[in-house]
Amino acid sequence: MSRGSEPDAGTTGGTKQTYVEDLKDHAGETVTLRGWVYNLRSSGKIAFLILRDGTGRTQCVLSKKEIGDEAFESARALTQESSVSVTGAVNLDDRAPGGAEIHVESFEVHQLAYDYPITPKEHGSSFLLDHRHLWIRSSRQHATLRVRAEVIRALQEFFDERGYLRVDSPILTSNACEGTSTLFETDYFGEPAYLTQSGQLYAEASAMAFGKVYCYGPTFRAEKSKTRRHLTEFWMVEPEVAYMRLEELLGLAEEFVTHIVRSVLERRRAELETLERDISKLEVIEPPFPRIRYDEAVKIAQAGGSEMPYGEDFGAPEETLISEGFEKPVLVTHFPRSVKAFYMAADPENPELALCVDMLAPEGYGEIVGGSEREADHDVLRERMRQHDIDPATMPWYLDLRKYGTVPHSGFGLGVERVVTWLCGIHHLRETIPFPRLLNRIRP
Amino acid sequence: MSRGSEPDAGTTGGTKQTYVEDLKDHAGETVTLRGWVYNLRSSGKIAFLILRDGTGRTQCVLSKKEIGDEAFESARALTQESSVSVTGAVNLDDRAPGGAEIHVESFEVHQLAYDYPITPKEHGSSFLLDHRHLWIRSSRQHATLRVRAEVIRALQEFFDERGYLRVDSPILTSNACEGTSTLFETDYFGEPAYLTQSGQLYAEASAMAFGKVYCYGPTFRAEKSKTRRHLTEFWMVEPEVAYMRLEELLGLAEEFVTHIVRSVLERRRAELETLERDISKLEVIEPPFPRIRYDEAVKIAQAGGSEMPYGEDFGAPEETLISEGFEKPVLVTHFPRSVKAFYMAADPENPELALCVDMLAPEGYGEIVGGSEREADHDVLRERMRQHDIDPATMPWYLDLRKYGTVPHSGFGLGVERVVTWLCGIHHLRETIPFPRLLNRIRP
Repeated sequence: MSRGSEPDAGTTGGTKQTYVEDLKDHAGETVTLRGWVYNLRSSGKIAFLILRDGTGRTQCVLSKKEIGDEAFESARALTQESSVSVTGAVNLDDRAPGGAEIHVESFEVHQLAYDYPITPKEHGSSFLLDHRHLWIRSSRQHATLRVRAEVIRALQEFFDERGYLRVDSPILTSNACEGTSTLFETDYFGEPAYLTQSGQLYAEASAMAFGKVYCYGPTFRAEKSKTRRHLTEFWMVEPEVAYMRLEELLGLAEEFVTHIVRSVLERRRAELETLERDISKLEVIEPPFPRIRYDEAVKIAQAGGSEMPYGEDFGAPEETLISEGFEKPVLVTHFPRSVKAFYMAADPENPELALCVDMLAPEGYGEIVGGSEREADHDVLRERMRQHDIDPATMPWYLDLRKYGTVPHSGFGLGVERVVTWLCGIHHLRETIPFPRLLNRIRP
Repeated sequence: MSRGSEPDAGTTGGTKQTYVEDLKDHAGETVTLRGWVYNLRSSGKIAFLILRDGTGRTQCVLSKKEIGDEAFESARALTQESSVSVTGAVNLDDRAPGGAEIHVESFEVHQLAYDYPITPKEHGSSFLLDHRHLWIRSSRQHATLRVRAEVIRALQEFFDERGYLRVDSPILTSNACEGTSTLFETDYFGEPAYLTQSGQLYAEASAMAFGKVYCYGPTFRAEKSKTRRHLTEFWMVEPEVAYMRLEELLGLAEEFVTHIVRSVLERRRAELETLERDISKLEVIEPPFPRIRYDEAVKIAQAGGSEMPYGEDFGAPEETLISEGFEKPVLVTHFPRSVKAFYMAADPENPELALCVDMLAPEGYGEIVGGSEREADHDVLRERMRQHDIDPATMPWYLDLRKYGTVPHSGFGLGVERVVTWLCGIHHLRETIPFPRLLNRIRP
C-alpha cells in the first residue's frame, strides 16, 4: 500500500490515464484507469472489480494466473472506496456495464479505505446529509448532480445563443426591499448588508444598458420553513428584456424550459434511467404550453378539493391540483396584484390584476418559473413601493431606471433546483444541489 | 410623449423588433428598432439620431420632408437616453458606424429623459460609481462587460468540452479556516456562518466523486485594503482533478488561459478596439508559457530593484517586475511552503517548498491563477492544519477525503475580474464587474 502523496501514484505502468467514459475509443488497447473501488467479488482464481473513476464504472477482471498470487491476494483485500490504478486491455462487450471490460495486467493501490461509512444498507437522511461529501459518490446522487450540471450548461447556452448578455447581479446588496425577516444579514464595514434573494432589480438596470440580459447565480432565503421544497441557498437564472411584453415572455419561458428538457434528454438519458425516471413524461414537453388565468386556476384547485378562496396565492397543494390536469407545464397568468411583488405591472384592462406568470411543472413538482412585466412608470412605481412599506429613498437607482428612458420590460426567474427535482423525478430539493443548505444545516 | 407603461409602446408600426446587431441580415427591409437616444444632431431639414439598443449603435436619418414638420420637431427635441422606437428601411453602408443606416419612416417616443446625469464631459470615479446603474450604458463600460460575459462563456465551455463536471461549491460555510478577519459573517439560525473565500475545499470533495470537476461562482473577501486590485465580491472558476500532478496542472492552466484569450479575440474584437487595447499583445498568447521557480523569480525582482528578501510572497511591484521580462503569462512554481496555504503538498525533493503555481499576467496585470497539488496524506494534512492554527475538528469532512480513498490531486483558481482587467487593458478591477463591491461601497 503506497501513500497517496507519493509521486509514483500518477505514473502506473507509464501509461497515460484514460477515463471510463472514453473506453469505447480504446478497443484492444492497454490503458490505465485511476479511480476507486465500487464493488469487488472474487472466487479463488478470479476477481471482478468494479472501478469508478467519476466519469463512469467499469468491470476489471483480475486473474490469479495472470497477475500472480501475491497481487491477487492484495486485490482481494481491496475495500469499498479504496483508491486504485489499474492497467489492462480494453475488451468491448455490450453485455458489460458501460460496454467495456478491462483485463487487468497490473494495478496499484494508493490507499486502502477502512470502514467507509456509506454501505449498501439503508441509511437515514440525516446520516446521509452529514456525510454529503461522501454521499455524492453514490450512483443516484451522482446521476442527479450530472443532470444538474447539464441543466446549468443548457440554460446558459440558450441565452448565449440568442444574444442575451450575461450580466451578473451582485450578491451583497444594501436593499432589504422584501423585509429583513427572510434575509441573511452581514456587517459590511460598519453598515448592514444582505445576501440577495433575486438578481432581478439589477438585471432591470442591465437590460436598459444591454437590451437582453440574464444573470445566473446563487440566491438566499433565510426561511424558517423545513419543507422538501425549501433551500436557504439556491441558484436562479433570471432573464430580463427591454421592450418585452407578457405575451412574448410566455413564449420565451416555454421555449427555454423546452430547451432544458431536451438537452437533458439528449445528454443525460443514462442518468435519468439510473434514477428510474419515467422518460415518456419528459418527452412530451414542447411548446405551446397551456395558458390559464389565475381565476381559472382557482376554480380548478377548488374543484379538486382546495378550500383556498379567490385572492390568495397558491400553496403546494393547490399547485399540485392545478398541474394534475396537464401533461406539460402550465402557465398561470394574471394573479391579483395584492399577492404579488411591488414591481409587477398592472393589467391595463383590470388594474387589480398583475401582468405576471407562474409556470407550474407537471406531476405536482410545483412552481419552476415566476415572472412578469415590470412597472415602468416612475410615479406609479414609487406609489407601489410606499404601499409595500418600502422607502423609495433606499433604492434611488431603481427609480432612476424609470426617469432616464423608461421602457416596458419583462423578465422571469427559474429556480435550478426545482427544475432538477422535476426532471429527475425525486422527492426532495436537497438532493439536487451538491452541498445543500437547509434550516439548521450548514455542514459539511 | 407616451408613458412608458402604456401598452402601445411595444407595437410600433406593427413590425417585429429587430436588433442593431442583426441589421446586416435585413438589407432593404423595413424594420423596427427599439432603444435609447445615444446622440442627436440636426439641421433645419435633416436629423441624425444615433440609436443604441444594447446590442449596438446605428445611425437613423430623419428628414423633415418625409416625416412631416410636427414629427421632425419632436425628433429634434429628443434628449440623451430618451427611449424611442424607430421604423425605417435598412441601408447597408460600410461607411456608417456598424455598417448600416436607417431611413426613418416613423418613430415613437416612450419617454423623454431629462437631465441624464452622465454627459460627455469628464466625471470623477466616485460620481460614476454612484451612478453605476447608468454608467454601464457608456461605451467603454459596455465593451468591458461584454468582454467579461465572453470570458465567462469561454471558461465554462473549456471545462464542459473536456468532460469536467460543474459541481457548485456552497457560498455559505461553517468553516473559517483562514481566520475570520477577512470573512463576511452572518447569523445562520443561531450559529455563525461565513461567505466563502474559495470553493476549493468542496471542489476537492467533488473531484473524489466525479474525477474532474470545476466550480464557478462568487467569492468574498472582507479586505480593508483599497487598491485597484481588490474587490470584496468577485467571481472565481476553480477546476480540481483527481490524480493530477503539478506538471499536468501547469499544462491545463496554460491551455485554459489560451482558450479564454482566443475566444475573446475571436468574438469580442470590436470591444477590444473600442477599449483601444493593443491586440498584438494578446495575439502572442499560446502554449507553452514560460515556467520559472520562485527562487529565480525572486532574483528577477531583486535585479529589477525590489528589496523583497527570499522567503516572502510577492507584492504587486514584484509581480510587475517579474512579468516584465515575458510577453506571455509566466508560471512561477515552488514557493516556500511557509507563505502558502496549509493544504498545499510539499515538494518531495525539498519539503520546504510547495508544489504550487502562480500565473502572472503580462504587462504588470498581476496574478491571475493560483494553484497547487493538494496534500493527500491524512496525518500530514492534520499536522499542517495545526501549524496554521486550524482546529481539525472544525472540518472533519475535509480530512475524510484523506481517509476514504485518498489520491494525489491538484487544482487552481482563476479570478475572472483580474483576467478581464488584463484582456481589456484597463487600470482598475472595479470596471470589470457590473456592480462592484468595494471597501465602503455597496451601492447601487
